[in-house]
Amino acid sequence: MANFTSFSELRAVCLDLPSGHPAASMAVIQREATLTKPPRSLGRLEDLVAWLAQWQGHAPPRLAEVEILVFAGNHGVTKQGVSAYPSEVTVQMVANFAHGGAAINQLARAAGAKLRVIPLSLETPTADFTEQPAMTESEFIAAVAAGYEAVAPDCDLVCLGEMGIGNTTAAAAIAAALFGGGGARWAGRGTGVDEDGLARKRTVVDRALARHAAILHDPLAVAAAIGGRELAAILGATLAARRQRIPVLLDGFVCTAAVAPLAKLRADTLAHTQAGHVSAEAGHRMLLEELGLVPLLDLNMRLGEASGAAAALNILRAALACHTGMATFAEAGVSDKPADEAEPKAAG
Amino acid sequence: MANFTSFSELRAVCLDLPSGHPAASMAVIQREATLTKPPRSLGRLEDLVAWLAQWQGHAPPRLAEVEILVFAGNHGVTKQGVSAYPSEVTVQMVANFAHGGAAINQLARAAGAKLRVIPLSLETPTADFTEQPAMTESEFIAAVAAGYEAVAPDCDLVCLGEMGIGNTTAAAAIAAALFGGGGARWAGRGTGVDEDGLARKRTVVDRALARHAAILHDPLAVAAAIGGRELAAILGATLAARRQRIPVLLDGFVCTAAVAPLAKLRADTLAHTQAGHVSAEAGHRMLLEELGLVPLLDLNMRLGEASGAAAALNILRAALACHTGMATFAEAGVSDKPADEAEPKAAG
Repeated sequence: MANFTSFSELRAVCLDLPSGHPAASMAVIQREATLTKPPRSLGRLEDLVAWLAQWQGHAPPRLAEVEILVFAGNHGVTKQGVSAYPSEVTVQMVANFAHGGAAINQLARAAGAKLRVIPLSLETPTADFTEQPAMTESEFIAAVAAGYEAVAPDCDLVCLGEMGIGNTTAAAAIAAALFGGGGARWAGRGTGVDEDGLARKRTVVDRALARHAAILHDPLAVAAAIGGRELAAILGATLAARRQRIPVLLDGFVCTAAVAPLAKLRADTLAHTQAGHVSAEAGHRMLLEELGLVPLLDLNMRLGEASGAAAALNILRAALACHTGMATFAEAGVSDKPADEAEPKAAG
Repeated sequence: MANFTSFSELRAVCLDLPSGHPAASMAVIQREATLTKPPRSLGRLEDLVAWLAQWQGHAPPRLAEVEILVFAGNHGVTKQGVSAYPSEVTVQMVANFAHGGAAINQLARAAGAKLRVIPLSLETPTADFTEQPAMTESEFIAAVAAGYEAVAPDCDLVCLGEMGIGNTTAAAAIAAALFGGGGARWAGRGTGVDEDGLARKRTVVDRALARHAAILHDPLAVAAAIGGRELAAILGATLAARRQRIPVLLDGFVCTAAVAPLAKLRADTLAHTQAGHVSAEAGHRMLLEELGLVPLLDLNMRLGEASGAAAALNILRAALACHTGMATFAEAGVSDKPADEAEPKAAG
């Protein structure tokens, strides 16, 4: 359960984080060295299995219970004309998720994950953050707690994503607040705004930074003032997962911006996360670089809904299948040694 | 059946290629535009489905019957000390494939594909191509034919890969012969040679280029003189797939080098292929660029065995699941129009 009811209590929780399990990670690495392949030849697949073990605390790790959590929210800033779609689409897409018709429904099934969609007060959009804070402290804390409590303690992995018309503008504003550069650096086309819409997004980001200049030094205050409920919930879910040592796959630009305040508060907070992909949304690659995250996929996707995280889950499953299913050199009777005397010139 | 018995007959077959099915591809693109997501927001996933349809000739395309073909061969050039492993490992790994213990067995199962391993005269390594042509014309044609005939006509997709101690040296020599730059540009560490081994590989490539200087203008002669049986079979399988309009996922450096002669003979030959991944083997990224192929995955893998292609198959399945399973805007009652009069400032 979420044990915070204010910025200051939440901040304390954000700074009080457990480490992973190096013994489990080491056991994975030791087994990898015995499997019938040249050392390290599965590259990042090997790293991913060690990372899963590092956080789950057992070797081999498991991917039996994987949950995809998609948080949805509405944004007052849409009245500034920052999205190609009307904000009614948020609730329409939540219905589409419920009926199994969205991309994430297909991707979740294909990757063997359970999908849960959590709408957050869709009937009450956040305030327009060019005019006032998007959320009050209590609204923000409630959204963070909703995300925190959505993480099932017995989960092997959580994939996080979002739906919210207008939320790439909130994400750009958060990125600009935390890493500098303003709207020109961080605003992108989102679901597909034209040149005028992009210009409006840039201006909106810059106006938000000016309006909230007094709190830009405080990552949690930034998340409340220029974020959104679904972003706050993703922050809460990521925090809950870290506190319970559950590995996380992040999705695109909005999802990454949502967790960036955690990394600003404490640099190693996102060690239990991997970036599922790098989105086509302009700011995402830069934001991942700022956070030191290396994406698993780069497929020009820009949908949100945890779609990139769900696609990347297939790669984790492939990695784990190799680790658990492969024979060792001894079992298979394969030479694991450098070429020997039989081939005197061999390279070793 | 393979209808070639000489270089000249094979060359004629290589130049006589059917086009794809633009109507099927267009039907996919038209359906994509009706699905509940912003246009093009699934990025390359959408392109992949259209590409599958382009070659299969039906919309939606299918991935019911997917075969992974792994060809194995032995190389006389190993006596030059170019591999970290003895050449006995080729036959040992073929046994490991048969018993289900290799990485590709796990990756095939995880991706829902059938694995077939085709050893090619392992007891008779090719000749050392620093001294003479690796294969005679008839040996080469036989290996190409073995690959050509391995492709099942009713297949929805073929993933190609290889096993052969010493074959990254053959691949580097082919790449150098076709694209220039010599051993310094193309030789890499393969399964893991040390600095001395790498220096030997570079020298071996340069000696091969000098030894076979007279035939370097002829892509098929290059494939015979400095290739290997498993590379020739991959060339044959890729040709058979194109002739039957079956899409292909290529694997790493060796697999890509094996098909490069086809692209040199006719520039559009590889249109029915996708690069499953870019390998950590030094030359692969350059070779993909030379061929205009954009890899699906970049995960620092360098195992061969079709492992990168099999991992990428999961991405194709995810793409197809979205295309066939998603609701349309009309079915889901989701607004597919730009924000309208209800939001007068909206960006459109």
